[in-house]
Order: sequence, then C-alpha cells, then structure tokens
Amino acid sequence: MRDILDELFDVLASRRSADPADSYVASLHHRGLNKILEKVGEEATETLLAAKDAEGGGNAERQALIAETADLWFHSLVMLSHLGLDHRDVLDELGQRFGISGHEEKAARSK
Amino acid sequence: MRDILDELFDVLASRRSADPADSYVASLHHRGLNKILEKVGEEATETLLAAKDAEGGGNAERQALIAETADLWFHSLVMLSHLGLDHRDVLDELGQRFGISGHEEKAARSK
Amino acid sequence: MRDILDELFDVLASRRSADPADSYVASLHHRGLNKILEKVGEEATETLLAAKDAEGGGNAERQALIAETADLWFHSLVMLSHLGLDHRDVLDELGQRFGISGHEEKAARSK
Amino acid sequence: MRDILDELFDVLASRRSADPADSYVASLHHRGLNKILEKVGEEATETLLAAKDAEGGGNAERQALIAETADLWFHSLVMLSHLGLDHRDVLDELGQRFGISGHEEKAARSK
Repeated sequence: MRDILDELFDVLASRRSADPADSYVASLHHRGLNKILEKVGEEATETLLAAKDAEGGGNAERQALIAETADLWFHSLVMLSHLGLDHRDVLDELGQRFGISGHEEKAARSK
Repeated sequence: MRDILDELFDVLASRRSADPADSYVASLHHRGLNKILEKVGEEATETLLAAKDAEGGGNAERQALIAETADLWFHSLVMLSHLGLDHRDVLDELGQRFGISGHEEKAARSK
Repeated sequence: MRDILDELFDVLASRRSADPADSYVASLHHRGLNKILEKVGEEATETLLAAKDAEGGGNAERQALIAETADLWFHSLVMLSHLGLDHRDVLDELGQRFGISGHEEKAARSK
Repeated sequence: MRDILDELFDVLASRRSADPADSYVASLHHRGLNKILEKVGEEATETLLAAKDAEGGGNAERQALIAETADLWFHSLVMLSHLGLDHRDVLDELGQRFGISGHEEKAARSK
C-alpha cells in the first residue's frame, strides 16, 4: 500500500521528462531551480495570507488555505525532485525527531 | 497502517494542550497564529537558501535542505492544527489534482 | 529639494486614482491588499535568490539584485500608500533608531 | 544636504568593521550572507503579517507595520552593503523607471 505523497512523487518523477510545453512540472524543471524556488516562496506567501484570512473566516477561507498549503507542499516536492532528493528523506527526518519509527514505515511501505 | 504524517499529526494534537513551558508545540499555539506564521515564513526562507546551497553542494548541504524542508512542513502542520484543519485535507486536495484516489487512501488508512 | 523616494511616493499617490487598465499601481490598489502583499512576498523571494546569485556572480547578477531590491522597495511603498501610511514614517523610524535627526530632515525637506 | 538613507548607509558602513560583539551590524556581516538574507526573509514575513493586522487595526497596528517595514528596509541595506552595493543604485533604478531624474538628485546630494 502506498500513500498519496508516494504516488504524487512518482507522478512528478514521470512528468519531469515530459515535453515542457505539455507539462507544468516539466516546464518548472526546464526553467531551473530559481524558477522552482520563486514558486515555493510565492506559495509560502500566499499560504500566510490565506491563514490570516482563515482565522476569522468561514468555509471558503478555510478551503483556500488548504489549496495554498497544497501548492506549497507540491512545489517543495518539485524542488526536492529537482535536486535528486525525496519526500521520504523529509518524512524520515520528521519521524526521527518525534520518535516515530521511520524504519517500520519504510518496511510497511514496501509491502 | 498509518504513515508518518498521520502519527505526527496525532503527536502535534496531543502536545497542543501540554504546558507551554514543556512543549515547543504548545508554546507556539499559546503565542498564537502570527507567531506560527512567522515560523512558517522563516522556515520557507531557510529552505530557499538551503536549496541554493544544495544545488552546487555536497552531502552536508543536501542534508541541511532536508532538515529545513522538514521544519517548513512541520510548522505548516502546526498552522493547520491551530486553525482546526488537517494534513489529510491537503493530501486529498493533492490527490484530486493528480487523479490519485484520496478515498481509497482514506479507506486504506482506517485498516 | 526633494529626494527620489518623496517624488516616487507622489507619483504613486497620483496613480492610485488612475484607471486600473492604464496603470499598474492603480490595478494593484484595485485588486486589494492581499494582491499587493503577494507582490511584496514575491519580490522578497526574488531578492533573496538574486542576492545568492550576486555573491559569486559578476556585473549582470549585481544589476539583477539592484532591480529586485527596487521591486521590493517599490511594492512596499505601494503597501504603505494603500494603508494610508508614508515612506517618511519609515525613514523617521530608521532615523530615530540610529540617532539621525528626522526633524532636521523634515525641516530640510520643506525648503 | 543628505537624507536619512545616505546617513544610515554611512552608519552601516562604519559599523561593518566594528567588533561583532559590540555591533549588531558587524555581527550580521560576520555571520555572512545567509544570516543576513534569513533576516530579510524574516522581516518580509513580519511585514506581511503586520500589514494584514494594520488593515482593520488601529494606531498600534499601524505603528507596528512602520516598525516592521523599517526592519525590512534596514536589513536590505545591510544586504546591499555586504555585497558592495549601495542604496543609491536602488534609488537611481527607481528614479529611472519613473522618469525621476537621478542625476539632478545626485548633483543635489553633493551640495
């Protein structure tokens, strides 16, 4: 069984080699690291603003925050992929910090 | 079977009500949304700088980028938790965008 | 005698009431504070990336950093203007912190 | 006659060679470009949050925004100084974009 981040990361990897005219992911890789990082910074800003609006807001503002956070995580996955890194490295780091077994996780993942 | 983000989110939720003097997570919630968002912005900046250094760097720079990305994701999870939202909302949003079944995922998660 | 920031601020104020279709400044005000702040965040990110590239770079990278810093200051001036504030408030704050007379400055400015 | 940014830039230049234990500016230069850029990013984030709070806020929130914008401009001046650049380059760039004479300005400045 695989989770959404695993599947998403595979999708991102497969689109990396697509035609930049056909794929947003391919076009980001083609334009290079600075362009990818501009997007990470841009989505971080939009996440902050959406969170401020969600604090006193209703369902629309909360949904907007979810969409912006998804954009932020998505572009940070593209960044990792561009540099040959992996979301599992980040999850393992988080697991280790909080005493959550990354090895069990990894073992489970391969089933 | 649960993954690291699920477990981490439970850890975050349980620490929210801890004594702010004992728990970093509790202290963030206690200090409020602006403090949490300052940390999200700070870690976003540090992620960008670490990514620039990782591009031409070696293993230490790559490990530093993983640590900064972990900080960024961690503080964005605290932000979601503070506003009563959930990492699963974000993962479902990503799953829907990329045609990855969030429902299968959710069903699998409850097993 | 007036300096560039004074003149620029007057230009920004005069364009605020222009047709949004004709003026970038008017269109920013028309689209509201979030749009202006997105631009501030975006230009801050681009400034950081340009500074990293300028560190080991040549004249083109240094010129790019100047242009990005100009974008950052420009959009922060639009932000101040949108909220009824003034670059002189910021300069006076800086002057006070560093023991530079803001009053003499102000007096000189009115000549 | 010189304005606050000119004087401030001279103060920053003179403190650059001070003992890092005695001067915040010297300590920033000593810790290097990444530390300076972290501060620029941090202050940009705090400026965005302060602007959101200033929108519906009172005088305290407006004063806080001025202080955060001053922090942002201050650290961007340290960044320019660290890389051998100058606030006048940025002001000239802004002047040229808006058809405000940087040369007259420069001439006036030397009086």
